[in-house]
Amino acid sequence: MSETNCPFCNGKERIVKENEHAYALLSNPRKVPGHTLVVPKRHVDKPWELTEMELRDVFDLISYIEQKLIGQFGDGCDIRQNYRPFLQQSELKVDHIHFHVIPRTLKDYIYQVSEKYDTELFAELDPVEAKAVTAAIK
Amino acid sequence: MSETNCPFCNGKERIVKENEHAYALLSNPRKVPGHTLVVPKRHVDKPWELTEMELRDVFDLISYIEQKLIGQFGDGCDIRQNYRPFLQQSELKVDHIHFHVIPRTLKDYIYQVSEKYDTELFAELDPVEAKAVTAAIK
Repeated sequence: MSETNCPFCNGKERIVKENEHAYALLSNPRKVPGHTLVVPKRHVDKPWELTEMELRDVFDLISYIEQKLIGQFGDGCDIRQNYRPFLQQSELKVDHIHFHVIPRTLKDYIYQVSEKYDTELFAELDPVEAKAVTAAIK
Repeated sequence: MSETNCPFCNGKERIVKENEHAYALLSNPRKVPGHTLVVPKRHVDKPWELTEMELRDVFDLISYIEQKLIGQFGDGCDIRQNYRPFLQQSELKVDHIHFHVIPRTLKDYIYQVSEKYDTELFAELDPVEAKAVTAAIK
């Protein structure tokens, strides 16, 4: 993946706000009204490649946008960043790192369509698993 | 919500890694093996209340953990932060801000149980909506 065919490096018509190292753009397609993306200006794929200044500017924009959206488009907000190198770039998958800001409301459309199934996913952490994860991280 | 009944201020037996302003703990219940939480040490509810140093330390831990988990527990990782003040605190909802680090693999269990429905959520951003969101953010 290069910057040449990157929609976030090239198509900037949807930018709604920017600061020194990041900008916010309207997600299209979007999941819910108000769905916004915050991206660093520099083409970075991996979360750990962000500099401290880029991270600060990305989160300054996220914070600003959440406070503007809450009350108008939702009662809360999710932040999501998906690093999934196993997927091919497509209309729904852009490699240039981006943080989704998604307004949320109790039992909203996202909840009804997919998230209500998420509770099935939760399981008790067992001691063997806890030991394996701890060993991997330490 | 006070710090008195906050599981992240009180129960620290699951901590696997820490730095000056943040720590990582194993999620329990967890969605998938390797599901980890990164939280600032200070009790903060809202994303925009994090100081620059807290944000830096939270992301230093996230970056560290993603690189340790990828390859062992997944082929990629999601970061999720849900600010949902409309939900009551419960076993599955803690107000003390926390960032989920969730190992992901192509068509993994999360995808199969809930996320495959997410594609239904995507819709074209229409000009009226784009105008309203832009006005809210600007």
